[in-house]
Amino acid sequence: MYLTDAVGILIFVDLSMTPEEMRRTGYAVVDRMVAWMAEPGPVIRRATPQAMADLLPGDEPKAPLGLDAVLGTLVDDVYPHASRVAHPGYFAYIPGSTTWPAALVDFMSSVANVYAGSWAESAGPSRLELVVLDWFRAWLGLPEGAEGVLTSGGSAANLMAFAVAREQLLGAMHADAMIYCSDQAHSSVGRAARVLGFRSDQVHVIPSDDGFRLRVDALAAAVAADRVAGRVPLLVSASGGATNTGAVDPLDDIADLCAEHDLWLHVDAAYGGFATVTARGARALAGIGRADSVTLDPHKWFFQPMECGALLVRESGALERAFTVLPDYLADSATHGGEVNFSDRGLQLTRRARSVSLWASVATFGTDAFRAAIDSGLDLAALASTLVDDDPHLELLSAARLGIVCFRRTLPGLGEPELAAANAWLAAALEATGRAMVSSTRLHGRYALRLCVLNHRSREEDVRFVLDFLARTPVPPEVLAAAVPDAAVPAGPLLDLLDEAGRRELARCSTRLVAPAGATVVSRWAGDRDFYAIVSGAVRVLIDGVVVRRLGPGEFFGEIAATDWGSGYGYVRTADVVAEEPTQLIVVPAEDLLRLMDVAPALRERILAARASRLGTL
Amino acid sequence: MYLTDAVGILIFVDLSMTPEEMRRTGYAVVDRMVAWMAEPGPVIRRATPQAMADLLPGDEPKAPLGLDAVLGTLVDDVYPHASRVAHPGYFAYIPGSTTWPAALVDFMSSVANVYAGSWAESAGPSRLELVVLDWFRAWLGLPEGAEGVLTSGGSAANLMAFAVAREQLLGAMHADAMIYCSDQAHSSVGRAARVLGFRSDQVHVIPSDDGFRLRVDALAAAVAADRVAGRVPLLVSASGGATNTGAVDPLDDIADLCAEHDLWLHVDAAYGGFATVTARGARALAGIGRADSVTLDPHKWFFQPMECGALLVRESGALERAFTVLPDYLADSATHGGEVNFSDRGLQLTRRARSVSLWASVATFGTDAFRAAIDSGLDLAALASTLVDDDPHLELLSAARLGIVCFRRTLPGLGEPELAAANAWLAAALEATGRAMVSSTRLHGRYALRLCVLNHRSREEDVRFVLDFLARTPVPPEVLAAAVPDAAVPAGPLLDLLDEAGRRELARCSTRLVAPAGATVVSRWAGDRDFYAIVSGAVRVLIDGVVVRRLGPGEFFGEIAATDWGSGYGYVRTADVVAEEPTQLIVVPAEDLLRLMDVAPALRERILAARASRLGTL
Repeated sequence: MYLTDAVGILIFVDLSMTPEEMRRTGYAVVDRMVAWMAEPGPVIRRATPQAMADLLPGDEPKAPLGLDAVLGTLVDDVYPHASRVAHPGYFAYIPGSTTWPAALVDFMSSVANVYAGSWAESAGPSRLELVVLDWFRAWLGLPEGAEGVLTSGGSAANLMAFAVAREQLLGAMHADAMIYCSDQAHSSVGRAARVLGFRSDQVHVIPSDDGFRLRVDALAAAVAADRVAGRVPLLVSASGGATNTGAVDPLDDIADLCAEHDLWLHVDAAYGGFATVTARGARALAGIGRADSVTLDPHKWFFQPMECGALLVRESGALERAFTVLPDYLADSATHGGEVNFSDRGLQLTRRARSVSLWASVATFGTDAFRAAIDSGLDLAALASTLVDDDPHLELLSAARLGIVCFRRTLPGLGEPELAAANAWLAAALEATGRAMVSSTRLHGRYALRLCVLNHRSREEDVRFVLDFLARTPVPPEVLAAAVPDAAVPAGPLLDLLDEAGRRELARCSTRLVAPAGATVVSRWAGDRDFYAIVSGAVRVLIDGVVVRRLGPGEFFGEIAATDWGSGYGYVRTADVVAEEPTQLIVVPAEDLLRLMDVAPALRERILAARASRLGTL
Repeated sequence: MYLTDAVGILIFVDLSMTPEEMRRTGYAVVDRMVAWMAEPGPVIRRATPQAMADLLPGDEPKAPLGLDAVLGTLVDDVYPHASRVAHPGYFAYIPGSTTWPAALVDFMSSVANVYAGSWAESAGPSRLELVVLDWFRAWLGLPEGAEGVLTSGGSAANLMAFAVAREQLLGAMHADAMIYCSDQAHSSVGRAARVLGFRSDQVHVIPSDDGFRLRVDALAAAVAADRVAGRVPLLVSASGGATNTGAVDPLDDIADLCAEHDLWLHVDAAYGGFATVTARGARALAGIGRADSVTLDPHKWFFQPMECGALLVRESGALERAFTVLPDYLADSATHGGEVNFSDRGLQLTRRARSVSLWASVATFGTDAFRAAIDSGLDLAALASTLVDDDPHLELLSAARLGIVCFRRTLPGLGEPELAAANAWLAAALEATGRAMVSSTRLHGRYALRLCVLNHRSREEDVRFVLDFLARTPVPPEVLAAAVPDAAVPAGPLLDLLDEAGRRELARCSTRLVAPAGATVVSRWAGDRDFYAIVSGAVRVLIDGVVVRRLGPGEFFGEIAATDWGSGYGYVRTADVVAEEPTQLIVVPAEDLLRLMDVAPALRERILAARASRLGTL
């Protein structure tokens, strides 16, 4: 290929490099990444969009920059502005810690550019995909013959599982088919249902118990009520390690109920499922082998690079029945006896060879080493749980389960707003050390810090450093002061419905939230249950992108989800709520609102009237 | 981490390696892959499941094998048993040829294990994602403000596009919403509709014209008829480079029709879209900038490793409105002014940093080099088209369009069955040389060889070698003899409905197919239109996995799709048909069947009666 350069001379350009250049740049990248692995951190480096735009302008680079300059930019400006999820002190969200062999083999697969969609074109990678999926099947206790496919992650696997269940049990979409999950289910469950064409009232959210496990009595009641109402219960999506707390739903009891009612049992074990390779993990996940389908993410607790998920399905052939489409131009890749076209088992036609780096990294170290690494995570989480429990400055909110512990700093005499502010400040201060990071969540309405230990590089000293920092770092008084509701701000007509005792109770159980203009406060399809009262500012309520109402000071929203809860089950959110301007909100968990309504009849009447009128306009 | 070894001694094991080991193995992998790039081939190496199982046993490797042994297995047994889609002679399906820098940066991103889901955690990679998407937007001619997201490929992008369209125009699923595409649309269009909860009668397949472009008159008629019938036309999925032939649907005319009827215009330009960087590609794709959404696959004609797709959407905010769900445990990653959480723009929460290798490989060589590489593909396809046209032994079935040419060997005096057999044999013989590979398809019922030139490594001599081989290699007489229907096999009652002239016509236009036991002959949701008559053997017809009938010799299927065609538009397939035993079939393209029915009233009556009775049982 020839290009004309600036002065009109034909020059040869090409997307190839000489073997010498490839070797030189390859070695240079290896050296850079060995050095990167040895760097201490920081655990995350944030940057604003403007700062990044200044560093990395957007112009189309017509002329070549050359690989050396590009590598310099990546190492100086791109990779550092991210979190290091493999840092031993990264305990936020779901840590992803991978291995050198897996990354090297990703490189090999990218050079070879393996297409892992059909047996004809990738017998080798396809064979390894069968092999690793069968390991997973055996670990989960699924019967021989159960099949699977590697996916881009748990979101894809959950969506595919629901598609397979629908195809197996109903064929086409059914307007009354119902999906059940707990209020602790992963957000991808709601997103999958929505994309698959379910309406939000086709997803029943079931309350969790004190241990954050799906309440089977409430599930049974919901299924029974739906049957009476002429609906068609389709599937239960249970958690095999909920993202919030690591809680495992009572899988055996749910399996019994599913068997009785011919429901599909899906277990979302995206992060927790690999614990089955250890004895205590297998105990915690007892019953998972009875599932019709299971989501597993090797990129979480099986130490693979990002975008390695898996779906296992009990019934042979069900995946192909749900997904196979064979057009003329793929007729040459039709399968013959025993061959598997993995593109027929899911939504992707072009597929990376995930199986190769997965198999290679496991074979390099041996499964016993992977088992030991998972066991070490369980040990460290148990240690953290004990340390929190023993520390008078920390309060355990959810004991260690499958690598996750939730807790918070206690500060005597403070209500929820101040505790939330203090703990958010502590998490930010911890991150600012560069040595460790935790994330936050809310558990039955209470602000919690969340420590997740899945990284094979994390050690006891990393966990001790985090807990020590959070237990002992003084919280500046101004942080607490800012969290206390400003007495000068009118509480609005809603709060006027409470007597003095009610207001005290509200102050105890509620938090204050300032939503910047444009922020989404409530998002449709989410399973959360909080109730919101507007102190100042304004919000828009949108259904299908259309503004259905505007609410201002003294008004409220979220009452539908919050009051549903009293009946034992509810729906996902039916509307988006977006702040129009900076908006101060009072946030009340569903459980607390129901208690408040019990003691404040005027409040109860007002909320139920709004609910009735708004449900009528949905 | 410690493990007990076989004799009870505690040994330290771990998933880490020393810097020296990382460097040594990293260099070794670089050397191996530089050598791999220099190897001449073969272009594909196939293997049976049993052969692969013998090479790669499935036992769980409890003890470490070590990286050196594992790399040896990969290079000896895994990677060789696959196609080399980057081979200069690989002209089958859609070739995927990548670059050394892209593969190196994939390695870096796997080591750093970048999570590219939220701005907070990946400001650097997210900035680069904004940058490359804006290049794409400008090349397509979409207005400023149009947004996008990188995906795992075109299948995901098409599915997401339909989800966004539904969310924007209808909100929730609507049982009468209609999708329109041509009979040349990619298989992922039907698969996406099915997964999204559409029924098969909600997808209207529109015939293509002689140039394999969607017939806008038929589309207009279908939309009008659906409106009269009370259905809700939702979106048109047009091809910006159809996979069969490279045909571009008349985008401007379709855009006019969509504007008139408030339909969403999606353009699936997965493989063809990047041609817009060249002047002639931009002309071929005129009108693409009027689309509401566009699918693009950088892993096809933009030289990226597998699983780099993209979706662009005209309306700002539409992606987030369709996909955002914000659970409590992700509250820390909520966005602030100008930040983008790319996980809110699609179905994946965990995401690889595709943007980094994409940006890096483009910046290394410069976009003018990418432009030149695409131009070279267009040149080579045009050359192939001319060479075929000039060669008396080759017949051009579809001239060069966006890198694809379809043609076949001509052999004087032979009917369709023998021509199909001869060309299939030639394609296999070409593959057996190890030097090149083409794939096959069917174009309006005729068997075609398909040459696709997207690889920046392909040269004129590679194209000439393929055409010369296919034009000149003698086809053994026994190949042709085997293709002629065996006169001893009873033709069955269906063919008895034809007179002698009708049977001669049938022999001319039909092909013989032998389906092995278990093979899927027709798959639901496919847009093909062939009609099948059973000579011997038996098939099962399944709807939603349930066998609705069994057909034997003399019976037929596929008449619904084939006869729909006469009305100007039809549906995707409504049932799966699977061979129960080795089954001999006569295959007749829809166009030919309609002609036959015109001259054979008894055949017509029989087929329409079966159609009416079977539609009643759907």
